[in-house]
Amino acid sequence: MARIVMKFGGTSMAGTERIRRVANIVRAQAAVKPDGTRDSVAVVVSAMAGETDRLVNFCREANPLYDPAEYDVVVASGEQVTSGLLALTLQALGCKARSWLGWQLPIHTVEAHAKARVESIDAEALIASMEAGEIAVIPGFQGLSAEGRVTTLGRGGSDTSAVAVAAAIKADRCDIYTDVDGVYTTDPRIVAKAKKQKAVTYEEMLELASVGAKVLQTRSVGLAMKEGVRVQVLSSFIGEGAPPADDLPGTMIVSDEEMDELVEKGLMERQLVTGIAHDKNEAKVILTRVPDRPGAVANIFEPLAAASINVDMIIQNVGRDKGETDVTFTVPQSDLARAQALLEDRRSEIGFNRIITDSKIAKISVVGVGMKSHAGVASSMFRALSDRGINIQAISTSEIKVSVMIDEDETELAVRVLHTAYGLDAKD
Amino acid sequence: MARIVMKFGGTSMAGTERIRRVANIVRAQAAVKPDGTRDSVAVVVSAMAGETDRLVNFCREANPLYDPAEYDVVVASGEQVTSGLLALTLQALGCKARSWLGWQLPIHTVEAHAKARVESIDAEALIASMEAGEIAVIPGFQGLSAEGRVTTLGRGGSDTSAVAVAAAIKADRCDIYTDVDGVYTTDPRIVAKAKKQKAVTYEEMLELASVGAKVLQTRSVGLAMKEGVRVQVLSSFIGEGAPPADDLPGTMIVSDEEMDELVEKGLMERQLVTGIAHDKNEAKVILTRVPDRPGAVANIFEPLAAASINVDMIIQNVGRDKGETDVTFTVPQSDLARAQALLEDRRSEIGFNRIITDSKIAKISVVGVGMKSHAGVASSMFRALSDRGINIQAISTSEIKVSVMIDEDETELAVRVLHTAYGLDAKD
Repeated sequence: MARIVMKFGGTSMAGTERIRRVANIVRAQAAVKPDGTRDSVAVVVSAMAGETDRLVNFCREANPLYDPAEYDVVVASGEQVTSGLLALTLQALGCKARSWLGWQLPIHTVEAHAKARVESIDAEALIASMEAGEIAVIPGFQGLSAEGRVTTLGRGGSDTSAVAVAAAIKADRCDIYTDVDGVYTTDPRIVAKAKKQKAVTYEEMLELASVGAKVLQTRSVGLAMKEGVRVQVLSSFIGEGAPPADDLPGTMIVSDEEMDELVEKGLMERQLVTGIAHDKNEAKVILTRVPDRPGAVANIFEPLAAASINVDMIIQNVGRDKGETDVTFTVPQSDLARAQALLEDRRSEIGFNRIITDSKIAKISVVGVGMKSHAGVASSMFRALSDRGINIQAISTSEIKVSVMIDEDETELAVRVLHTAYGLDAKD
Repeated sequence: MARIVMKFGGTSMAGTERIRRVANIVRAQAAVKPDGTRDSVAVVVSAMAGETDRLVNFCREANPLYDPAEYDVVVASGEQVTSGLLALTLQALGCKARSWLGWQLPIHTVEAHAKARVESIDAEALIASMEAGEIAVIPGFQGLSAEGRVTTLGRGGSDTSAVAVAAAIKADRCDIYTDVDGVYTTDPRIVAKAKKQKAVTYEEMLELASVGAKVLQTRSVGLAMKEGVRVQVLSSFIGEGAPPADDLPGTMIVSDEEMDELVEKGLMERQLVTGIAHDKNEAKVILTRVPDRPGAVANIFEPLAAASINVDMIIQNVGRDKGETDVTFTVPQSDLARAQALLEDRRSEIGFNRIITDSKIAKISVVGVGMKSHAGVASSMFRALSDRGINIQAISTSEIKVSVMIDEDETELAVRVLHTAYGLDAKD
């Protein structure tokens, strides 16, 4: 008897018809198998697509500078509705099922309304109910603060809820059902020959999630890696009621060791590059003629960090004039105006000349654990791009990732060029 | 420093614009008064108009035979949203405010999902917060079962929530804001000369509420009477931000003793009849040729009671044939089909000949505490109706009420005739 957590996103939960499709998938998972055993099943659900936006808009209308504690009360209601409806629909299909709200389990989070983090989950009653054959339906996104108030985990937080529940009940697998059927070598809307991967490693998924492959919330991947939760990404738009195939139809997120095993068994090819991701949501900021002295850079980035603005790439160009330098970095486009205002406020303290901003940029990233042991991935990336006349404005790297900043208009071309260059195109 | 509970219904909460109007009324109530004191204020809110219907429909689509425990999870979300939004709006107006969900206070209810009853409210933290100057915003309609699950109080339950909160915090007054500005002698849409009453007694309000004057949920009036909560009915569509007038602009629901005082002070006239109510939502059932023997009538009404079908008027006509009788009674139209099916199932046990049903009936009721000490109210009612040729099909009475069943088409005529007959028409 395996313990399985299944997570369904807002598109899968959009209306009672779609919830019925989800219920059929869940029922198949929970059904008695030919060998007489059956899985214990917990389901984590998002709000209906569009519902969270509707609720967020209400909050903005009510109070543009909203109190995040009350915001959480309002927006957490979307998942409460879908969890009750899925439990009702499962019951209509003859399954035993009940909902467990965030405050009922409870899912303890640290007190940071609208972006809380899961601290622990009291899973005893939950496990007992599941073992007794009751399907548990848990609203994603929501938790309970130490003060006994409703918290939410930030947009996309239901993935993290699912992984946290899976860790708490020591689940054998956490299946994340989305509107794509797995993790691809790149965005199939850009490259028709993109291939679905049978498996990627946690680290690869973490890099892919953080550079714009919107399959999983970044935080959920980090948590899965930390807790060793086996995560599978798969589509909820498979045939209604079809039992999940034994050979796992989606993409498994695995540890490095499991990946090695898969390669040894011939189930995966050893790959230098696993995926090419792109991200058009960053903006570039250039501060010109910053004094080239100790502490100057800290003066720039400390206030941004204090304001929770996520700075990604940073490049310091040595200036023409001695003792001065240009500092270039990227921030999310949604934070650009705030970042600019913050820096203007500190102009004299930092001592720059001008702020130049550009949101018409894109970040292209090549990701793969194979880079750890193989040199030359970065240089072949630069070569492939320069051969097609694509200008690289900035570079950043990690152990298993190389990212470049380019002009936004060249995004699709760059992705196609790199997909071919690394031999990722599917054979016809 | 008075403690005031304010309750706003779904029409007042329909959208962020209307919630802003409500917030202005609440702010005025909570503001520091010319004498330097201020009221402690708790606000109980309904879901946005239409929202509960939307959620109930989702439940029906998900599972026509829905589990009331999960139904409660879904439908309680509507009030959660409006309570958070009103707290946010009050904060935007510069007030301190926070929401208290049913499970947070908690509002303990007995375990009867979808029609729970309030058992007790832990008011200590609530009172402390209110005394500290924070406006408490409480979603109506919802509570917590002994098993730690969400319950709801049945449609219209927010009135009862408000009265229960008022009782728990020993409020000086519970103001129920509705879309009418008080309790009228009858429906002003039928009788243009209907008068707003300055005060009615609990018993009168109870009879009026139960016979179709939809100002307050019946249960809330019963609770207010039992707990001695001073309730005022008034309109939320008064001028925005206008502070509640000192002379109480609505209708006060008072005890018999308070009513006597008001009359002595000349603030109220002694009235024989307080109001004329009508109700078109009943249906008539006639069972013909029921054996006239002990237990026969119990055989009819026991199964209906077991199915929670509310039987109102009952008339037993002596039949033409010895040993047989016709039994006539009324049930809510919404329960008619179910009642009919139940009785058909027990045809041989009960031993009737035919079931005749008629939903084209209306119940007209004359209500007033004055009847306790004055005879003749019923006979003058029958005389006034017969003078206009209105046929009375059945009669039922209580200590302070006389109800008659008539043809539905004659409803408006009957109400106008009685309003004039009892001298209730406003002077021009």
